[in-house]
Amino acid sequence: MSKDSKELKDVSRRDFLKSTAGIAAATGVALGGLGLISKDADAKDAIPKKWDETYDVVVIGSGFAGLAGAIEARKAGANVVIIEKMPVHGGNSVINGGDFSAAGTKMQKDAGVQDSPELMLKDMLKAGLYLNNPELAKIVAYGSKDALEWCQTYIGARFARLNFHGGHSVKRAHQTINASGSELVNKMLSKAKELGVKVQLRTKLERFILNKDNRVIGVEVRKNYNFPNENSGKKAYIKASKAVILTSGGFSRDVNLRKVHDPRLDERFESTNHAGATGEAIMAACMARAMDVHMDWIQLGPWTSPDEKGFGYVPLFCERLVGYGPMIDPKTGKRFFKETGNRKERADAIILIGHPVIIMGDSYAVNKQVFPEALKKGLESGSIKKFDTLDDLAKAYNIPVAAFKEEIARWNSFVEKKKDTDFDCMIFPEAKPTATPPFYAARLWPKVHHTMGGLVINKDTQVIGFDFKPVSGLYAAGEVTGGIHGAVRLGGVAMADCIIFGRIAGQNAAKEKAWV
Amino acid sequence: MSKDSKELKDVSRRDFLKSTAGIAAATGVALGGLGLISKDADAKDAIPKKWDETYDVVVIGSGFAGLAGAIEARKAGANVVIIEKMPVHGGNSVINGGDFSAAGTKMQKDAGVQDSPELMLKDMLKAGLYLNNPELAKIVAYGSKDALEWCQTYIGARFARLNFHGGHSVKRAHQTINASGSELVNKMLSKAKELGVKVQLRTKLERFILNKDNRVIGVEVRKNYNFPNENSGKKAYIKASKAVILTSGGFSRDVNLRKVHDPRLDERFESTNHAGATGEAIMAACMARAMDVHMDWIQLGPWTSPDEKGFGYVPLFCERLVGYGPMIDPKTGKRFFKETGNRKERADAIILIGHPVIIMGDSYAVNKQVFPEALKKGLESGSIKKFDTLDDLAKAYNIPVAAFKEEIARWNSFVEKKKDTDFDCMIFPEAKPTATPPFYAARLWPKVHHTMGGLVINKDTQVIGFDFKPVSGLYAAGEVTGGIHGAVRLGGVAMADCIIFGRIAGQNAAKEKAWV
Repeated sequence: MSKDSKELKDVSRRDFLKSTAGIAAATGVALGGLGLISKDADAKDAIPKKWDETYDVVVIGSGFAGLAGAIEARKAGANVVIIEKMPVHGGNSVINGGDFSAAGTKMQKDAGVQDSPELMLKDMLKAGLYLNNPELAKIVAYGSKDALEWCQTYIGARFARLNFHGGHSVKRAHQTINASGSELVNKMLSKAKELGVKVQLRTKLERFILNKDNRVIGVEVRKNYNFPNENSGKKAYIKASKAVILTSGGFSRDVNLRKVHDPRLDERFESTNHAGATGEAIMAACMARAMDVHMDWIQLGPWTSPDEKGFGYVPLFCERLVGYGPMIDPKTGKRFFKETGNRKERADAIILIGHPVIIMGDSYAVNKQVFPEALKKGLESGSIKKFDTLDDLAKAYNIPVAAFKEEIARWNSFVEKKKDTDFDCMIFPEAKPTATPPFYAARLWPKVHHTMGGLVINKDTQVIGFDFKPVSGLYAAGEVTGGIHGAVRLGGVAMADCIIFGRIAGQNAAKEKAWV
Repeated sequence: MSKDSKELKDVSRRDFLKSTAGIAAATGVALGGLGLISKDADAKDAIPKKWDETYDVVVIGSGFAGLAGAIEARKAGANVVIIEKMPVHGGNSVINGGDFSAAGTKMQKDAGVQDSPELMLKDMLKAGLYLNNPELAKIVAYGSKDALEWCQTYIGARFARLNFHGGHSVKRAHQTINASGSELVNKMLSKAKELGVKVQLRTKLERFILNKDNRVIGVEVRKNYNFPNENSGKKAYIKASKAVILTSGGFSRDVNLRKVHDPRLDERFESTNHAGATGEAIMAACMARAMDVHMDWIQLGPWTSPDEKGFGYVPLFCERLVGYGPMIDPKTGKRFFKETGNRKERADAIILIGHPVIIMGDSYAVNKQVFPEALKKGLESGSIKKFDTLDDLAKAYNIPVAAFKEEIARWNSFVEKKKDTDFDCMIFPEAKPTATPPFYAARLWPKVHHTMGGLVINKDTQVIGFDFKPVSGLYAAGEVTGGIHGAVRLGGVAMADCIIFGRIAGQNAAKEKAWV
């Protein structure tokens, strides 16, 4: 903290020089070649006279990336604080499914899965429609095995099974023992605290503070902030002598920001994310000249239901039924899209219809395909419904009965022929006509799941500005960054991304030369 | 210019106040509640002490949008300058094809074309994958007829025929008599000059100058700038008492900026645009806190050839042959994609292959389909080639002969059956097997054609900042803006967009209250 008194002296000296310049201007004396004047002290981007707190490294956000950054920066000797706007730590990481995609691991070898970083990179680029920054995507694929091992051996997180996610060539999602990111987040938080990292909850970023050379020198925050009350808490200035690491996550819950980049995604769309997944920190970075990229690639789950909160049970019902039962527009009683289309295609088709649709199956399909526990929970909560007849089902969802029954007969004829000439849905060999009661159904309406876009970073996680140069003193990692996943982020790759770039950010932030 | 002396006085008074604040800080006396100090006078975003020139409205760019804005602002009584970085006026507008899409016009009625703004809007949204800002797209569709009439009656531009462009439901592209945007640009320039608008060529925007409230108050420029020499010319400060209108066009020729948003689009890709279509003005606006959107939607023409500059003749050859002749990867001798796929699909497929491909047809197809003049010019320039045998063709492009001839036989079997079971290419009823010599071929490699992304604007063409509020004093129109076209800009809609929003920008800029 002794640095602050030095800073105050510097400030005084600068102000003294400036006052001279002011007098010179007032008396009409030219002052060298610049011909420029400074803004007033009440300018919106002015610098605090006094800092309330000082750290070497200020980390914004307490999810996977923030914790990884804080741990590495602290290990490298830096004095580190994590600020988190929510009253609890962990952001969206603590409620994620705990699947960590990594290639060429011991668990894969033990399970006989042939994998390689090359193959993982290939899958990421293909899913990303080749919009991915190839250098960054490569760092994730090639660093994924080491990152997983760091989580296992250094952090002590336990991973119990391998899962498959669409778009990957092999099983490479390593699931935590409790099928939740909390296994990793909580152990990282313990480790960070053990190392001496300070954690301040309910502390919200208001703006980045830049010096005259546009170097980030600290942040203005609100302490004792009470999400989402924007006027709660008290302003304070935190100096970052070395650097700020931004790991504030994505903006799946930020309706205004979503609407700018994809105007369809208005208030009608919920999100599978935690309530704090809003974009004000990304915007604050852009106000500090950080460049944003791919903000319009916003991932929707087409398998979610408006009849339950968050992720829910319907996705587990829907995803096992596609190719076994039809998806129906309740207004017309007709099918409207290939049930086995990819996430984006199906979500786009439902949005175009403009209201929730129905996924359904008969008792043969449901008993054969749907995980019994998910079915039970869905039926209990009412998000999945059961009917003795097609007429009852139609009545419950206000579907025109005659058109609906005609369409079911048409669907069944496709199933018999194993060929859908309407939408080219894949019909699986074991599929049977939808004819055996009882019938099960659920309503579908997409929810926002992940935002691929964010701040541009380089391989050292320096944030790149609109002038193509690093924003000095600013690093970023995790969902707040963009470009790594391109158009589509594959399942489980977020964890690898956060740990890998979070660690790099921490290591590099600690190496920065202090600005004062 | 008398305003400048007043400004200097204000500056002096402000600096005097500031010097007091500086002394107060040095002596440790608190100065009210702000607790902030101003940046030094050498800060990168400082304000000039003296303006070299003063106008009410400064327009950046001299294409369709800039000229429309300048004309309207001048008509409303503002003192207006247009600055243009290139040594010639008109930007990309002056080399465009002169097709103006408008719905419900007299020319359409005379030609018996049934059209409506509703239908045009529907086409725009569908092509845009519904990413378009619907309010802005609607303003274009519903304003297109009036905008065309303004060009005809007020400006005196002549339009001679109706063209059809892919993605439109009807013929609605009104082509200028010389099939070039120059017909409109040159007449608009004359009108602007006649009204008293000043035009300064070789004057390049360096940065926007903001006051302490982040209002745009002027621009730093380089005068006598010599494109593309970044250090040429001399710095000067132009004050905009009312507003700046940014109409600097797209960034199709800006390789660095393209690569951030679509890393595939590196130096291997030429552009159909003029050399000045670079993005530094968009970046300068973002540095002044303007929000960008859809920057990753960069339109490629899949029909261009690496064997000719700019747009060339091959597009006219290629687009008439698809569905009549095959597209071949010369490395394998095989087809690789549906020849009748849309622009984006085909460009993506060629990029994925990574080298130029071949479009070909036999003499039946070419004589039936290709405009003789385009064929003649292409043959003369060497971008289209003619061969007596398939063997000769294969040899010329280094295609493995046996595989190639096998593939042609396979293609011909599809043509016979009118059904392509490999890629589902549409095969037209009149198509015949590719078998009648001579054979014609050209190489294809996509070129960057249009950038859909740019600055966020509202219906009044105010530029919206990263804080979701208008950037005070800044308007924008034309290709420098984003969100109007969403994922895909349809043919001819750029002209309507530029004229409509350019005019709105000019009207509103003139109405701004002068800041000093």
